[in-house]
Amino acid sequence: MMSLPPAPIPAPPPLRALPRRLAALVALSLGCAMTLPPPARAEEATPMTAQQSDPATLGWMVGAPPPADKIIRFSDGDYFTFPKLRWTVCHFRQLMPTIGVGRGLGPLRFFERKIDDSIEGLSFMPLGSTKPMTFGDAFDVNYTDGLVILHKGVLIYERYAGCLDETGQHAAMSVTKSLTGLLGEILVAEGTIDDKAKVATLVPELAGSAFGDATVRQVLDMTTGLHYSEDYSDPNADVWIYSAAGSPLPKPADYKGPRSYFDYLKTVRKEGEHGAAFGYKTINSDALGWIIVRVTGKSVATLLSERIWSRMGAELDAYYTVDSIGTPFAGGGFNAGLRDLARIGQLMLGGGMLNGERLIPEAAIAHIRAGGDPAKFAKADYPLLKGWSYTGMWWITNNPNGAFMARGVHGQAIYIDPAAQMVIARFASNPVTSNAANDPTSLPAYAAVADYLKDK
Amino acid sequence: MMSLPPAPIPAPPPLRALPRRLAALVALSLGCAMTLPPPARAEEATPMTAQQSDPATLGWMVGAPPPADKIIRFSDGDYFTFPKLRWTVCHFRQLMPTIGVGRGLGPLRFFERKIDDSIEGLSFMPLGSTKPMTFGDAFDVNYTDGLVILHKGVLIYERYAGCLDETGQHAAMSVTKSLTGLLGEILVAEGTIDDKAKVATLVPELAGSAFGDATVRQVLDMTTGLHYSEDYSDPNADVWIYSAAGSPLPKPADYKGPRSYFDYLKTVRKEGEHGAAFGYKTINSDALGWIIVRVTGKSVATLLSERIWSRMGAELDAYYTVDSIGTPFAGGGFNAGLRDLARIGQLMLGGGMLNGERLIPEAAIAHIRAGGDPAKFAKADYPLLKGWSYTGMWWITNNPNGAFMARGVHGQAIYIDPAAQMVIARFASNPVTSNAANDPTSLPAYAAVADYLKDK
Repeated sequence: MMSLPPAPIPAPPPLRALPRRLAALVALSLGCAMTLPPPARAEEATPMTAQQSDPATLGWMVGAPPPADKIIRFSDGDYFTFPKLRWTVCHFRQLMPTIGVGRGLGPLRFFERKIDDSIEGLSFMPLGSTKPMTFGDAFDVNYTDGLVILHKGVLIYERYAGCLDETGQHAAMSVTKSLTGLLGEILVAEGTIDDKAKVATLVPELAGSAFGDATVRQVLDMTTGLHYSEDYSDPNADVWIYSAAGSPLPKPADYKGPRSYFDYLKTVRKEGEHGAAFGYKTINSDALGWIIVRVTGKSVATLLSERIWSRMGAELDAYYTVDSIGTPFAGGGFNAGLRDLARIGQLMLGGGMLNGERLIPEAAIAHIRAGGDPAKFAKADYPLLKGWSYTGMWWITNNPNGAFMARGVHGQAIYIDPAAQMVIARFASNPVTSNAANDPTSLPAYAAVADYLKDK
Repeated sequence: MMSLPPAPIPAPPPLRALPRRLAALVALSLGCAMTLPPPARAEEATPMTAQQSDPATLGWMVGAPPPADKIIRFSDGDYFTFPKLRWTVCHFRQLMPTIGVGRGLGPLRFFERKIDDSIEGLSFMPLGSTKPMTFGDAFDVNYTDGLVILHKGVLIYERYAGCLDETGQHAAMSVTKSLTGLLGEILVAEGTIDDKAKVATLVPELAGSAFGDATVRQVLDMTTGLHYSEDYSDPNADVWIYSAAGSPLPKPADYKGPRSYFDYLKTVRKEGEHGAAFGYKTINSDALGWIIVRVTGKSVATLLSERIWSRMGAELDAYYTVDSIGTPFAGGGFNAGLRDLARIGQLMLGGGMLNGERLIPEAAIAHIRAGGDPAKFAKADYPLLKGWSYTGMWWITNNPNGAFMARGVHGQAIYIDPAAQMVIARFASNPVTSNAANDPTSLPAYAAVADYLKDK
């Protein structure tokens, strides 16, 4: 009658022994696009195709036990390098501790389904190219693991590859931020949080940090002035300390740094002025996550389940990775099913209504769709995102259709086009971290589908 | 657009530095009842009541961050000591990596519900006592987290406490073994596995171990002769090596032992003869898990989902904890919702039928219900389980009602009484590991309900 999961058996190499390649990777992955070099040229030199790098083809974690060179472990540090990451994006819970976002006990509400076979052949011109490409070709070019399109709430396109199918969960990466931002905007719209309040008045522990005298709105819009270096060639860069703080693994005996996301946030120093410019930094989302749990008593995982996941007819539970004190990673730890990601898009498109029920105050969505300040956004200098803005942790294209997005590294996306009444949800495992690598074959592809649907 | 879960940051104390108290605990929890001293008297001396030790009352992991003395971490090693374990039983996924057992995309099938208010007041005589107790009183006495009773498939009793409610998952502990055994019996009944085959013919890696010349049937019935010490006062006991092998945490640099459940199983030496006596040892279940994945190409998690979880109208996904190479802990790592645990009981009661559909070959259930060899069981000397037997990793009471059970430490149970057409599913977090502590206030309570229902 006796058996238990194993007791913790201590271990690994000291922090200083971490390979430099790993350091680079972590920084890359946590980092902000602007301070990074252009999309990894080494990877581009000899890229395996989507088919060649398919996890099933490569046999990651297949066998009992898998061959030694096919095992992917969190502690080995290379679990998020290409091509291993193509397996990892579907299996975070097997590598790390997680917290569930329950779908509750309500019925599953499937989308009405009318597959439109002509979408695969829609042609578009990739940014910076003179050679057209079809929507179907872009699927593999972008190492897409799954893509769903809704038109007027009806599922008209659905395709899976790699590690994903309709019963699996996939890493949403920084799409996580948009969910955290959405929860924040809900609380603002409901009057639970005053977005003009200084962060220190809500989370006194942040009073001594750069966040202390920032407003909640500045955090929501990522216009905080933060000293936060993501120079991956510098072993003392902030991104390193952040990464160490958030690791769920035990810290080395001689470790002196912060031991959780919250601990890290308290140490962030100010750089420049708040409110002056958009600066995309993951730590804003975790600061917002702290504000949310402090104000509501509920973590982003619990609140997301209560407010949305358990009420939208989700097909699958979702989950977040957690740090060593159980805090969900509000900046990038979310994992979910693709159709459920599309449901979030449909909820945004519907102004907070889904299946005839209001889940979110209309004002919260309206605020996001109105967008942030394009002038502040322009200072961040995204060559491919000219004229865009950012607010509530969503990306606003400011195009004529009023499209807006949630975006995560390696190609995660929710693209909502109100004029076309279209939602696109995509999971991917592009070898290149930055979306600057896949935007040229994604953004115009989305626009082409919108053009096609607009007349229907 | 960039953010990632944190990279692994190495750390903890060397193996030898693990506190002795932890050593004792791990051994206790993994260990076999027979080689252990009577239920921990120290704990019995000053026990907190169920109410006093309620996780919400004690505030484990409450707050953002929780106070330092309210944080429960896997690596701290005391996560499964009382009273912390009362939180942990509902939150294993927040402490360890896990693998999902998906419920699929089918509809939830709720039990018909006719609550019988008289059950709470049913009286029974605890074993070894002269003072009667009511069923309702036994709930807290046994630190029950949830208990469901089905009669003829109708839900007639449901009560939760502690960390659990109808939307949560709870550790099943060694009830896991019965699910592993059930999968094994299914494969035997279908002819996929010959239960007379020697283990080495199916898993050649086990040829040099004690399992090599055991038959699958001996593994299924735990009549293998294994040298496997669970003397927790001995720091070199096998249970220690097993625990270290199965830990998902990185191993210390100087660690020389086995690095996974499979690696450990290869090292087990023979003691005595196979087939002579029942000897309850967790490693049999993990050996069976290895046989299952080798024969089917599917881990117990995947197979359980495909064969049962996705077909029974489960209300919740379930999950297993995994070791560092992703192997589900087939001996004790299962976690599920209480009603779904009851569904398993109903499936067993129905001879493999549920909701009018056959999920399991009748022969598999028939074999289990026929029981094992009581003479072999008697040699294991369970004073409270006189006349019982064990087969297919299920406990057979051999009472006149033909009742049989799945049992896990700290009070986990599925109790199936065919004569009364009754299923009881219980999750608990009793401070005492061995079920010998709660059997006196559980087994006669179950029998009392069966007596009550038999005439209805």
